[in-house]
Amino acid sequence: MTTVPLITDDGPPTVAAVFADIRATRGADYVNNFWRGLAIDPTQLAEVWDAAKRTMAPGALDPLTKELIYIAVSTANSCAYCVHSHTASARAKGMTDAQHAELLAVIALAARTNHLATALQVPVDPVFNRTEQP
Amino acid sequence: MTTVPLITDDGPPTVAAVFADIRATRGADYVNNFWRGLAIDPTQLAEVWDAAKRTMAPGALDPLTKELIYIAVSTANSCAYCVHSHTASARAKGMTDAQHAELLAVIALAARTNHLATALQVPVDPVFNRTEQP
Amino acid sequence: MTTVPLITDDGPPTVAAVFADIRATRGADYVNNFWRGLAIDPTQLAEVWDAAKRTMAPGALDPLTKELIYIAVSTANSCAYCVHSHTASARAKGMTDAQHAELLAVIALAARTNHLATALQVPVDPVFNRTEQP
Amino acid sequence: MTTVPLITDDGPPTVAAVFADIRATRGADYVNNFWRGLAIDPTQLAEVWDAAKRTMAPGALDPLTKELIYIAVSTANSCAYCVHSHTASARAKGMTDAQHAELLAVIALAARTNHLATALQVPVDPVFNRTEQP
Amino acid sequence: MTTVPLITDDGPPTVAAVFADIRATRGADYVNNFWRGLAIDPTQLAEVWDAAKRTMAPGALDPLTKELIYIAVSTANSCAYCVHSHTASARAKGMTDAQHAELLAVIALAARTNHLATALQVPVDPVFNRTEQP
Amino acid sequence: MTTVPLITDDGPPTVAAVFADIRATRGADYVNNFWRGLAIDPTQLAEVWDAAKRTMAPGALDPLTKELIYIAVSTANSCAYCVHSHTASARAKGMTDAQHAELLAVIALAARTNHLATALQVPVDPVFNRTEQP
Repeated sequence: MTTVPLITDDGPPTVAAVFADIRATRGADYVNNFWRGLAIDPTQLAEVWDAAKRTMAPGALDPLTKELIYIAVSTANSCAYCVHSHTASARAKGMTDAQHAELLAVIALAARTNHLATALQVPVDPVFNRTEQP
Repeated sequence: MTTVPLITDDGPPTVAAVFADIRATRGADYVNNFWRGLAIDPTQLAEVWDAAKRTMAPGALDPLTKELIYIAVSTANSCAYCVHSHTASARAKGMTDAQHAELLAVIALAARTNHLATALQVPVDPVFNRTEQP
Repeated sequence: MTTVPLITDDGPPTVAAVFADIRATRGADYVNNFWRGLAIDPTQLAEVWDAAKRTMAPGALDPLTKELIYIAVSTANSCAYCVHSHTASARAKGMTDAQHAELLAVIALAARTNHLATALQVPVDPVFNRTEQP
Repeated sequence: MTTVPLITDDGPPTVAAVFADIRATRGADYVNNFWRGLAIDPTQLAEVWDAAKRTMAPGALDPLTKELIYIAVSTANSCAYCVHSHTASARAKGMTDAQHAELLAVIALAARTNHLATALQVPVDPVFNRTEQP
Repeated sequence: MTTVPLITDDGPPTVAAVFADIRATRGADYVNNFWRGLAIDPTQLAEVWDAAKRTMAPGALDPLTKELIYIAVSTANSCAYCVHSHTASARAKGMTDAQHAELLAVIALAARTNHLATALQVPVDPVFNRTEQP
Repeated sequence: MTTVPLITDDGPPTVAAVFADIRATRGADYVNNFWRGLAIDPTQLAEVWDAAKRTMAPGALDPLTKELIYIAVSTANSCAYCVHSHTASARAKGMTDAQHAELLAVIALAARTNHLATALQVPVDPVFNRTEQP
């Protein structure tokens, strides 16, 4: 079930161009439902795909580390679709079972202490401050 | 301001023992407010510290990667204290300015697509499924 | 699957009265599952339906704008049911495809900057303060 | 800092009436900032105070249990103000230090398993279903 | 659909031991999917089960109160699986329909005021502070 | 307190160019802290500012409606900074006190029903589905 129609390969040319780039970038024919839903707005489809391609490319962080961070955010935001799709992406980029297990352990630890810190409402220690000046 | 008193170094011996281990593990005298607040329950203090020490140690993922994941979860959970303390930890473990900037970009991209996927309510693609059997 | 039974049209009279008002207000026979689940508590059913009817009526904001706000909150709270039902309501109140696409773009932008602001932990600028006095 | 002015005791009569009822119900002169901020909208002020008074009164659950549930929701929603004010309310209704410590432990456990369940995306077991029929 | 395989009763001995303890503790043969998913990491499975058993046992709070708190956190974190499984647990521990209805009312009230307090951004009243000293 | 330094007007030329455009676009000299914090990464600063300028411009939705949606998302995501800054923006774009009060009422209603729907776990009604086919 969706709140929008899913756009097929017979959509407008701007959509088809993004779908083609998704296929070329991934070296795979399958275009997943997120992009087909987002394609109701060809401008946003192109922008988000472009941002995703650039942001997830190798840089100061490697692509697998970026996928782990992505799964972490998606889990805390309770986005089922995103947890599924980025766990699959992380596996495709080499995430081992042991790395997956550790990722889950860190996410669970962070969630536990996040809630404890929020319930305690302890003040941020001044030593953590990085402000120099406005 | 806090919802609990912050326990000083003059607390009960079980608390003092955890504080001593925090100092020894970190090679630093400073014990931050989170642990002082959590110390109202010495049992939970000991358990959380123990879990944190084990979970954040080197394993299939390196300690810095784990801190980046921790910041990501804390950001999505909107835990101000945790964002501050783990950004400081990540820096202490070598996070560069360029890595910090990329971390923020990945978190921001994930938040953006998390909300889009939730608003679109697209179905999870069967290809992402890992279930073998119950 | 649900955590409560869904109440049919053969429920208690107080429930039947709310269901009748839902039908009359909407000019439609269909009563959606949310109200059937909430009907396990006829008092809360009546209160929430009453609040919804009053709050979503025309006022300083028009009904469609209110539905857009509702979708925005439901998305950020990751409530799949609510995103579906209020997207349908917004369409019934005239939301165009172009408006839907812009709504998604604003939600996605806000999510992106929300996470950035939380990760940066920048202090609120005093110029934003509205407090006059306690 | 606030996004609205805080209304003093010299506000409109409908606001003064709610403030008087808050004082009478609690047997205390102090009216906390939440109600002073909410008072920018006298109608909503009256409705929320009325709902709070009725919902938090003794019923099938006792008032202290209700405050613990309130703190739990407020923590997960990351509402600093609410965590502070309802921890104070719980204490005023008899919450002991031991109960507070156990509350924090349950909240932390739930957060930990919430994130694990979301990351695992395991299907809900049919045995948990309560639906009888629509 | 899951992001991990679900481990059967034919898994490794350390998993089988936890499954046996789950069965013995609950006096029931059924092991629900959460534990089967978590079993991809036998160490974390054992730790989380152990923490759950200890934390949810009778103490300063009774087991049913703890389940209500658990449902509250799971709802605010939007964890569908957890809401289902802990509503079932609460019923198994004696939650009546009236108590369930009041639980929902408190959760809904807290969510409403949480969002109002966050939107108003009123400052925490100093009277709620419990800090004695660091 | 921040996790990054706040960049002054003496930052690198690419930052200065964005700050100049913020000033020109708004017709005001003040550059708020969010942009000064984000400026640690000139590329992301430029992209987010550009996205914000385009997304918040008049289109199928008017600029004030967009600010209301922004406040709604920021509230549900518990981003204090964003709630403050976008409430100020909405006022600058003409939000009246009556509109602000109604916005808060809709946000509070949505939060209340979001949590109820999540706690009830009622299935999405097939009538809300928009999928045509992939």
